[in-house]
Amino acid sequence: MGKQSIPDVVIRRLPIYLRVLENLSEDFYGNVISSFKLGEKSGVSPAQVRKDLSIIGSFGKQGLGYEIAVLRDELKRILNLDKEIKVGIIGVGNLGHAIARYITQKYATEKDFHLKLVALFDSDPEVLGELINGVPIDLIDTFHAKALELGFRMVVIAVPAEEAQAVMDKCAAAGIEAVLNFAPIHLKAPKEIRVHNTDLSIDLMHLAYYL
Amino acid sequence: MGKQSIPDVVIRRLPIYLRVLENLSEDFYGNVISSFKLGEKSGVSPAQVRKDLSIIGSFGKQGLGYEIAVLRDELKRILNLDKEIKVGIIGVGNLGHAIARYITQKYATEKDFHLKLVALFDSDPEVLGELINGVPIDLIDTFHAKALELGFRMVVIAVPAEEAQAVMDKCAAAGIEAVLNFAPIHLKAPKEIRVHNTDLSIDLMHLAYYL
Repeated sequence: MGKQSIPDVVIRRLPIYLRVLENLSEDFYGNVISSFKLGEKSGVSPAQVRKDLSIIGSFGKQGLGYEIAVLRDELKRILNLDKEIKVGIIGVGNLGHAIARYITQKYATEKDFHLKLVALFDSDPEVLGELINGVPIDLIDTFHAKALELGFRMVVIAVPAEEAQAVMDKCAAAGIEAVLNFAPIHLKAPKEIRVHNTDLSIDLMHLAYYL
Repeated sequence: MGKQSIPDVVIRRLPIYLRVLENLSEDFYGNVISSFKLGEKSGVSPAQVRKDLSIIGSFGKQGLGYEIAVLRDELKRILNLDKEIKVGIIGVGNLGHAIARYITQKYATEKDFHLKLVALFDSDPEVLGELINGVPIDLIDTFHAKALELGFRMVVIAVPAEEAQAVMDKCAAAGIEAVLNFAPIHLKAPKEIRVHNTDLSIDLMHLAYYL
């Protein structure tokens, strides 16, 4: 099946399956995992696991399950995680700092984490040159040049709401292809850029409904 | 329509609409907003806006739109945001710190932000008593007693994966009703607890598919 035809809700679950596989002790499970076990550890029903994996073309062996190494490699390939992916962060306040530390620490400590932080940007000249786990903070004015020089195409936006659209416009101009937006605002972007939003206030307000 | 019968995908969009309404300049828009304008600012189609709002029982006036103040109050009531909601955070590393600062700053500066951080917990005795914007860090051992004393029912989990299930079990024992989990692991919880997961690695791996 072509990449374009995998539904996004299925894509969303693939990294969850991948993480489960990467954290397995292979000694314990042998070299196969059942859809039941994979589902249990992923928070997904076994039927959904089988359906998702058949969509990407992976089929378990009747009564045995999925070969762990094969499935892991296949998931990585589909998610483009069989190669290193460079990431930049724009906005290095509290949140940007926390994200930068998280990515760099995961990259340094987990052999299967393929996202590498290569650049940090902020509008405040006072933090220029400061390092976060070895990655220097550049001024946002240099974003376009740095994106081309370093070759990253994925960006995390962690600036205040009122600065976020201008930052998104810079991303569009520099050929960025994927954006994870933490700014609490809906951003307009050309359709060539895939934008996902993650928003703590919205998450909390959503949960409040269930109190 | 009873609360139980509103689909979660609709509930998810209500805080987004609410945020748009709270950020509107009423002078500019008068006291009504069209489904087109509300949709544009929310990143949702006008038809979806009308459908969502009709599900919660709010109907715009033909050719005019929705009364802003009425709709805002209605959304707050449905989301339980017409009263203050107390929140606790478990795990005060980089991420927990950033979340704590975010919630306290938003609460202090935005009149319509109803989530109040009342407690912080960590397993490290070294940070005991430290304050984040006035909220002290307690030892996780005191969680049960503090939850009852302070009366919070919503918790953010920001501990490492290997500690998260034990923390969730403490939440269940203390009668917590809603959990936002940042730990990169699927947690088992009794069905009385609503658990939402938010996971930076999964978000980034998901986006990598689109590069």
